[in-house]
Amino acid sequence: MTLPSHWYNIVPDLPAAPPPPLHPGTRQPVGPDDLAPLFPMELIEQEVSTERFVAIPQEVLDVYRMWRPTPLLRARRLERALGTPARIYYKYEGGSPAGSHKPNTAVPQAFYNARAGVRRLTTETGAGQWGSALAFACSQFGLECEIWMVRASYDQKPYRRSLMRVYGATVHASPSSVTKAGGKVLAEHPDSTGSLGIAISEAVEVAAAGADVRYALGSVLNHVLLHQTVIGEEALGQLEEMPDVIIGCTGGGSNFGGLVFPFLREKLAGRIDPVIRAVEPAACPTFTRGVYAYDFGDTAGFTPLLKMHTLGHDFVPDPIHAGGLRYHGMSPLLSHMYELGMFEAVSKSQSECFEAGVRFARTEGILPAPEPTHALAETIAEALRCKETGEPKVILTALCGHGHFDLAAYDRYLSGAMEDFTLPQSRIDDALAGLPG
Amino acid sequence: MTLPSHWYNIVPDLPAAPPPPLHPGTRQPVGPDDLAPLFPMELIEQEVSTERFVAIPQEVLDVYRMWRPTPLLRARRLERALGTPARIYYKYEGGSPAGSHKPNTAVPQAFYNARAGVRRLTTETGAGQWGSALAFACSQFGLECEIWMVRASYDQKPYRRSLMRVYGATVHASPSSVTKAGGKVLAEHPDSTGSLGIAISEAVEVAAAGADVRYALGSVLNHVLLHQTVIGEEALGQLEEMPDVIIGCTGGGSNFGGLVFPFLREKLAGRIDPVIRAVEPAACPTFTRGVYAYDFGDTAGFTPLLKMHTLGHDFVPDPIHAGGLRYHGMSPLLSHMYELGMFEAVSKSQSECFEAGVRFARTEGILPAPEPTHALAETIAEALRCKETGEPKVILTALCGHGHFDLAAYDRYLSGAMEDFTLPQSRIDDALAGLPG
Repeated sequence: MTLPSHWYNIVPDLPAAPPPPLHPGTRQPVGPDDLAPLFPMELIEQEVSTERFVAIPQEVLDVYRMWRPTPLLRARRLERALGTPARIYYKYEGGSPAGSHKPNTAVPQAFYNARAGVRRLTTETGAGQWGSALAFACSQFGLECEIWMVRASYDQKPYRRSLMRVYGATVHASPSSVTKAGGKVLAEHPDSTGSLGIAISEAVEVAAAGADVRYALGSVLNHVLLHQTVIGEEALGQLEEMPDVIIGCTGGGSNFGGLVFPFLREKLAGRIDPVIRAVEPAACPTFTRGVYAYDFGDTAGFTPLLKMHTLGHDFVPDPIHAGGLRYHGMSPLLSHMYELGMFEAVSKSQSECFEAGVRFARTEGILPAPEPTHALAETIAEALRCKETGEPKVILTALCGHGHFDLAAYDRYLSGAMEDFTLPQSRIDDALAGLPG
Repeated sequence: MTLPSHWYNIVPDLPAAPPPPLHPGTRQPVGPDDLAPLFPMELIEQEVSTERFVAIPQEVLDVYRMWRPTPLLRARRLERALGTPARIYYKYEGGSPAGSHKPNTAVPQAFYNARAGVRRLTTETGAGQWGSALAFACSQFGLECEIWMVRASYDQKPYRRSLMRVYGATVHASPSSVTKAGGKVLAEHPDSTGSLGIAISEAVEVAAAGADVRYALGSVLNHVLLHQTVIGEEALGQLEEMPDVIIGCTGGGSNFGGLVFPFLREKLAGRIDPVIRAVEPAACPTFTRGVYAYDFGDTAGFTPLLKMHTLGHDFVPDPIHAGGLRYHGMSPLLSHMYELGMFEAVSKSQSECFEAGVRFARTEGILPAPEPTHALAETIAEALRCKETGEPKVILTALCGHGHFDLAAYDRYLSGAMEDFTLPQSRIDDALAGLPG
């Protein structure tokens, strides 16, 4: 199969337009000029675009070609091991240079910034998948790259940090003393394990202060989800049969949106009718226990207000190994669609996810990153329900990255030392009390 | 492109037959019965086969399909960075479940053993690439797997060890006290960093003592190189232009043989005429500083005598990070072909190889394992010679694995702390003095 020529923008196909981001001071919708200190104009245009399809530039296709199209595989061995009549397909993104789906957006982001004359990009990273993807992409287009990595992952996953450095990036543990936002957190909580919200504040602070510096975000925003639709477009073309159920993990929503948007287009057009289900960690249950409200995308309150499912921008999730899912908020676009009833959401405990990861590795051979083990845990649960009911459902999931950097976590699981965090409602209530009026 | 249906056996196409393995006691050629305690009969038949093509069983193709055919990529960004008129192609094997080319033989070895009723496989591993590949393959066919991992890598690369355990294998550091062979080494050298030769002795000792236990080797033997020819067969079909130079790294020879044998078939038939070049580490220079003689494949002297390029079975290479190249001997088949003048060999220092690895990562995006950085270092050297002469040569190389488990080594290199070992002739002479009379 060949590469998709266009990204798919679901916004114009929705039954209602998503609420706009607001300026925190004026409470008016932000315009392109408000975003210009952070992003180049071509990305801002994509962020607010109402075109259904956006052409992928040739320079981006030339890099995509290194690992795309990615394989769509049938999990026959897993099916046999489960004894399920379900047919399970997975789209595997771990063959990319950074080992995850993140380069799908890192590459166009670096490209558009380079074309706009930007010299340096700043960003945050959780588990390091996004950071290593952006470091790789920057090396492709001659940009410098400066990364704030959430402290919990910085300590747990030193080798992702090393990978970013091999690609030539500078990496700070977040919270760091390099920024005012980081310094403030450290002053109050010297032992902070960090969060994506804090790291975003640090990266945004540095980008906003520099003339030829811009900021890149690895998830959440419309243009990021747009770029990830290559996953779903390829899968649509590769599948021999249309899915009854589509399952993806959600942190900021880019892997999930990238997988499901093209299928939702077909569903909105009445051509298919799959159930679509997001899976989030029980330690950071944005859809299932958060509220739908305007909130900051970062901890310090530097970003516009985004209407989204949020646990509050002060919420610091427990240090689960799925660092890429430790985000207090959620893509505003997906949040809007969830409110419209376009998909379901469930949450999973860490140990159930690692159990699914080991089961998948021992049957299908691929070691999954902790993030997609959430989708695999629900995929296995769905396949076992099919076993009970005898329904031969077709299940599609996204295996968005390999776990070769996550073996310390697997070691903990195999040794029986993996912790399952409980999240008392009071912690959510406390964080939600800090929502902007 | 589709998967190859057959493995290619170069033996019947050679101008002279390779010298046979000898029984160390009788000095007579070993027969199938001598090998039966170690290998199932179908693999022994492949080891001595004179058929040019061996059909790949459907069960093996079904597993190969998880990651094969592997991509053949043109290194346009590296070419541009070097300013060379050469055109560089690389065959990338890092997308396999274990991240290297090793599953190409691990899968058929596990399959034939399972079909023969074997319940457990033992093996050695250097950097862990072979061990994780065999652990994966055993999990596919329901076999137990017990692995002796060279101490130097066991300590440097804990996460490969974890990966083997996720696949369900048991892993010992070698030398270990589990075996007589390991215990003997430990008694003499309690701080031994180990070697592939010692680890082989341990795995062979355990396999030979058990009824339903057999041994699997990750390189060196004819049937292993046979299975790896899927690499070269696919590359032949994928290339748009035939190579002038083919470059591969050599430890035991399986990646190199797998890449070059199909091209050598075409060369022997007069259809193409590439220069073929093996690259080995300066710390373990089997071709370039070893002798061509009968020697044991392991340290304890359990294996048949193999006529090969060897540094002596007592030789313990310095602990370079390319653990997969730390073997005192060389494939007897490749050794024979080297004597026939069918290819060249050069050696490279560790730091030159890591320099090439970082350069490759920053241009092509893929982080190479330390082993294929040897091939990349020579590929870059050849491309720079082309720049001087203006020759637009077509260069083909094999990128046989990713370096996501090797970032501690890259960290050392980037920090300037990487050591380059010198290998005094006296150490080689001492080891060669122990060759079997």
